[in-house]
Order: sequence, then structure tokens, then C-alpha cells
Amino acid sequence: MEPTIKVALLGFGTVGSGVYQMLTENKSKITQKKQVDFEICKILVGNRTKHQAAIEKGVPITTDFSEILNDPTIQIVVEVMGSAETAREYIIHSLEAGKHVVTANKDALALYGDELTRVAKENNKNLFFEASVAGGIPIIRALTDSFIADSIQEVSGIINGTTNFIISRMSEEGESYEQALALAQEKGFAEADPTGDVEGLDAARKLIILVKLAFGYRMKLDDFPVSGITQLKQHDFDAAKHYGFTLKLIGSAKQLEEGFTARVGMYLVPLAHPLAMVKNEYNGVFVKGEAIGETMFYGPGAGSLPTANSVVADILAISDRIKWQQTESFLPLVSNDYSWHQAGTLVTDALVRVGDQEAVASLVSQKLNGEVSKYGADYMYLSNITEQQLEELEANERVEAIYRKL
Amino acid sequence: MEPTIKVALLGFGTVGSGVYQMLTENKSKITQKKQVDFEICKILVGNRTKHQAAIEKGVPITTDFSEILNDPTIQIVVEVMGSAETAREYIIHSLEAGKHVVTANKDALALYGDELTRVAKENNKNLFFEASVAGGIPIIRALTDSFIADSIQEVSGIINGTTNFIISRMSEEGESYEQALALAQEKGFAEADPTGDVEGLDAARKLIILVKLAFGYRMKLDDFPVSGITQLKQHDFDAAKHYGFTLKLIGSAKQLEEGFTARVGMYLVPLAHPLAMVKNEYNGVFVKGEAIGETMFYGPGAGSLPTANSVVADILAISDRIKWQQTESFLPLVSNDYSWHQAGTLVTDALVRVGDQEAVASLVSQKLNGEVSKYGADYMYLSNITEQQLEELEANERVEAIYRKL
Repeated sequence: MEPTIKVALLGFGTVGSGVYQMLTENKSKITQKKQVDFEICKILVGNRTKHQAAIEKGVPITTDFSEILNDPTIQIVVEVMGSAETAREYIIHSLEAGKHVVTANKDALALYGDELTRVAKENNKNLFFEASVAGGIPIIRALTDSFIADSIQEVSGIINGTTNFIISRMSEEGESYEQALALAQEKGFAEADPTGDVEGLDAARKLIILVKLAFGYRMKLDDFPVSGITQLKQHDFDAAKHYGFTLKLIGSAKQLEEGFTARVGMYLVPLAHPLAMVKNEYNGVFVKGEAIGETMFYGPGAGSLPTANSVVADILAISDRIKWQQTESFLPLVSNDYSWHQAGTLVTDALVRVGDQEAVASLVSQKLNGEVSKYGADYMYLSNITEQQLEELEANERVEAIYRKL
Repeated sequence: MEPTIKVALLGFGTVGSGVYQMLTENKSKITQKKQVDFEICKILVGNRTKHQAAIEKGVPITTDFSEILNDPTIQIVVEVMGSAETAREYIIHSLEAGKHVVTANKDALALYGDELTRVAKENNKNLFFEASVAGGIPIIRALTDSFIADSIQEVSGIINGTTNFIISRMSEEGESYEQALALAQEKGFAEADPTGDVEGLDAARKLIILVKLAFGYRMKLDDFPVSGITQLKQHDFDAAKHYGFTLKLIGSAKQLEEGFTARVGMYLVPLAHPLAMVKNEYNGVFVKGEAIGETMFYGPGAGSLPTANSVVADILAISDRIKWQQTESFLPLVSNDYSWHQAGTLVTDALVRVGDQEAVASLVSQKLNGEVSKYGADYMYLSNITEQQLEELEANERVEAIYRKL
């Protein structure tokens, strides 16, 4: 007889129902491989009537969190709800009640990661969150387990599938931003209010988690520049291609000699770069380390079953630790101090779109350190320009968009 | 005071010296992150005089394995030697002497994996081998930890950097096979006798390991077709490109409705497939699962520090397990029975190179099930052809090469 580990789900939406499906349908396979059995004994939802069909099939739906919290036989709580504040509260209560927690909640981790980690440590419980970044891609485990002895120099990720889908439609199919966004909404990749995705905020929250694991730095949303895809124009892709690049929304953090730098925005990605092939709703995370060199992890960034697979992997990892009475909290409590780069010393290339031809002429005539090449009426490509100069350009009202080289 | 875990290395070549470098140079960082200290207290070599410089610097070189075997304070033995037979012997002795083992030895694992796993289990010791496939890419951990609840449908990997380098030079630089091989040898990517790489044997051994982890099947070298890159001609890449493909040496295993199929050989890879961008000496492993969908892991397949990074990750994983008195052997002992596909039912596309124009005409006039398209004088592209028909073509002496679609 295998030991049975009781699991409760908080939330029964896209991810929650995927977790339920995987744990029930693959039960015998998992039991055989891991010598452990799982039972999902409670599922917390906000509204019973919405889940009437599931209830009739015997799915153990409840609307009362205390039924979970006060059941000492429940060992693992899986938080897949959504709201950062409610998630924070439920995660803390669960950890304090002696339960291990798996969460897919990037917002809660980006905002309250330190507090959640501290509570997990204080209560000697595990807090795992593989699904919080890049859905189905096991990037968290790679950073915490596989690259732990290395010195990471760069993490750059296409970590928002919605915007990558829109970008791909614009780049590959010649659609306008509005057409591509409408299609993304039609396909369910984008929400009715797409602000969080298209403004880069979703990617920024995920970058905060990646930076913490890769560099040990505690960033806040205000600490680094974040922009999205709303300024994109169809013609931008032609200009980028002219110089050998494609354009991608990337959350990028680098440890350079000049200091640490992090940003979410549209980047020029060399066509031969591994991230250039990450298309449609897929995600990709590029990691460069002193020992490991260049690696890239590619896969689905969202979706019911891919994300559920990461959640289930966390549940299995915790069940191992329960078996061996071992605890571990992935998020490092101590954040190293870090020195932000000095904008004046950081040199890069960038493609700049300006409002009109006169503006180009006027900007080109400015004393820029680097070389300038013009493309069409609206674009200039600046080589070896300092970050400081780019920031000055950004403040110029004639400048419509700046795309830095990754 | 952190606990110190004593480690012995068997071998001080490319990988061994990389492991020594990482564990000594990153000592304080590792100690801080993992709350454990490591000491490499013995390094077994075949010949002391070769390592005189290291000995003078205080590296603890020995030529006597019994010094390691009989030292009860050594808890982890790292086997990075080379020969499968010697490695097998030393790994077994180490496990029997109560030591955990990390190995990078794909040959030993492909040939003696079951025996080594059995001995590890019997002695309640860990046997880890992340570095054995695709060097720096954490693909073993992904298969054993992250995708364990999923049903894997396909594993296809560019898992030999030497041949991928040669292929890239031919494809991108227009070099001949002989030129590209000579350059690979000059750069140290290919050995003086490149047989194991260019005939596909190295990839085949790695595929055996991947198949065991992904599908639980125990394959032997004679169980599946293995071919390499020696038949490649420059013009093949043009023909492949004409039909929207690039050519890659791939170890591929698929669980299809028709049964299980595995092969190492040159494949037609669609240009938009994630593996198409894996170039030069890099490796890439594509994994498709029922839940996870399509993922790909990209990175260096060899090299001192990337491979050492995987070995060190294994050492750290074992040190966790020592701390928690936990043991685990990755390789599953039980191999499921598997039903090989029936060649007659399996349908694919293929590009075929024939010796002369008459041969093309003659073959085209044969009653082939699928559609036939000709390219130049020497190539025909067959759509929807059965594996059985391809095998018949393979036996035809006028057929020089067959490239199946991945």
C-alpha cells in the first residue's frame, strides 16, 4: 500500500482544472514511478453554481477555505487563483497551518516573495513555484538546481506569450498591431483588457522572479524600465530586418562589468540568436553563465496542461521531501546588494524611430558618440551609443520608439 | 561551521579539471548557497608524470584507486574517465564501498546502465549522470523531475556537437564534408579517429539513455537503425532547402499509435522547427509530451566547464540527499515492454538521393504509394511513403542517401 498524500487546490480555473485532470488521469503512472499516491480532497472556488457540472461528477468543491486550513490531513496546498493579495493571505495561512505550498502566482511572488519565503522557512515548509514563470518550461528548477554553482551573467526571456503572439503575427503575417491584438483576443491568448500584457507588466513581474533566482537580487517594479508593445508599427520589423534583427518583447537582466542592468522592452534580437526562433504564443528563456555558456529553454508559456505539468512536478518534488522529511524554500531570503549600471558607461546599438524626416536630420546632426545609419525616412540605427545618450533620446518628443540590441 | 563533504575524482582530463576548477574557485559561493562545503581529496589518474604541474600546485593526484575505495571519509566519487569497462568496474566498486557516484560516462550508462542502477539501489546509494547527455544542458533532470507526470510522445535531439559543427559548416559556409571535418579536428571538436561521432554511434548511446528516462524502454544498440553523416554531400542541403528543410543528425524516438520507433540518422528538419536553429557545436533536445506540448532545451553539448557544471549540479544534488539521508537512483530499473512499430503502417516524407538520372526515372516509375517530386538530376522527394517502402529503397544500390522528415 502506497502512502497517500492529500492535496487541496485553491482555484479551479484553467490551471486548477489541468492539475486535477493530470493528478486523476495519471494516478497509476505517478504511483508506480514515485511510490506515492495523491488525493485531491478539497477544491476551493468562489462560486459553487459555476462548478455545478463538476460537483455532479463528484469533484470535491468547497467555498470555505477554513475546511482546508483546519483539515490537518491536507499536506499540500496548491494556489492557482489569481489575485495577488488573496493568494498572499491564503499562502501564509496555509504555511502557518503546517502545509506545504505550490503556487503559480507570479504577481504574489513578485510583490510578496520575500515575505512568503520567510513564512515558509519559519514554518519549516516548502514553497515551490515552477509554474509562475514561463508556464511549462522548467526554468525555475534549472536556475535553482542546475546552474547553482555557476555565475550567471545574463537572463533574457520571452516570458509573455500574448505579446509574442501579437509580435509574431505582425512580423510574419504583416498584420497591424490592432489586427494582431484582435486575433489574440479571439484565440483567448489576450484578455479583454490586455493592459498587463501589452504594457510589459506581466513580463516585468516574471523578470523580478528570474532575477532573484539567477542573481540573488531583490528588484521592485519601480527599479527598472518597463515598456511594452503598444508603440510597435508594422514597418519597424522591416527596419530591424534591414540591420539583421527581429524585434521581440524581452525581459532582460545582465551582470556587466559596468554593473547590473535590467529592463523589459522591445529588443533587437540578432536573427541567429536562440530567442529569435521563439514564435507565436511560445516562451523562451536564454541563460548565459560563466561556466555553462549560452543555453535556452523553449516551450509553452501558458495553457492549462503545460502549466499544470509544472505544478504537478512541484507537487511530486514536495512529496519526495515529505517522504524524506526534508524542507527547502527555493527563493533565497538574502538578497545581495547590487550596483546599478552607470548609464554613461554602458554602450550598445539601437534602432530609433522618429516622427518625421526633419527630426531624423536634426537628431543625426546632434553630436552622437557612435555611428549613425539611416533607414527610410523614419529610422536611424545608432552603433556604439551610450545608455545615457539613449535616455536623452527617449526624452525627446520627436522620438517615437527606441529598440536596443539585446 | 559547515559540514564538509569529501569528493574523489576518477580522471583529470577536460571534464575532471573543469570540476576541480568549479568546486575550488566557487567554494565560498557554493557554501553560502547550499550550507555545505566540499573538499576534493583525491584525484585518480593513469600517469603521474602527465600531471606534474598540477601535483606541484598541491592537487591531490593519485594513481591508486584503492586509496579512494578504502577511504571511508570519501562520500562521493565522480567518474570522468572515458573507457566504459573501467568506468563500470570503478563505479560498481565505489557504490559497493558505500559511496555515491556521479558519472558523465554515456558509454558505461548505455551499455551497463541497468547493472549500475541495480548496484546503486542494492547499496542504497545515489547514481547521478546529468553530464552524460548533452553536456551542459540539464535534460536528464527535466525528464526525471519536470516531466515525470506527463506522457512523453517524442524525444528528438541534436546530441553530438562534433557532427552538428560539421553539418553547420557544410550548410552555412558551403564547405565540403572533408573540409568541415578537417576544421572540426583543428578546433578540437573532432578526434583524430572521428568514427564514433560521424557514424552516429555516440548519438546512439545518448539516445539509449534518453529513451530509458523518457519512455522507460531499455534499448540496445542493435535494436534501432543508426547512421551518421559520412554520406552527406554539399548539394543535399540545397535539395533539402528547396523543400523547406534543413538537414540535421538527430537521435529521435517517438511513441506513435503504430508503435514505438527510434533512429539515429540525418533528418529533414522543417526550417521553423526549434531544432533547426541549433547550430555549430551546440546541442538541442526537443521533447514533446501530452501535457507539456513542445519544448526544446538548447546549450553546449560538450566542453570542460559546461560539462563540469552538470557534474557539479549532480554533486550538489547528492550533498542535499546526504544531508537528508535520502537516496534515489534516476535510471528506472524496470523497463516496460515496448512494441516496435510495424514498418508497413508508418507513413512519412523523405528526400532520396540517387546515383544517376536513370536511377531516378526507374525509381519514380516504380509503384510508390505516395507522391513523387524531382529536384535536379539526383533527388526525389517522396510524400506519404511507408517506412517499409523506404527500407526497400535503402536496400537498392542505386540509392545513395535517404533523409526522413523529422
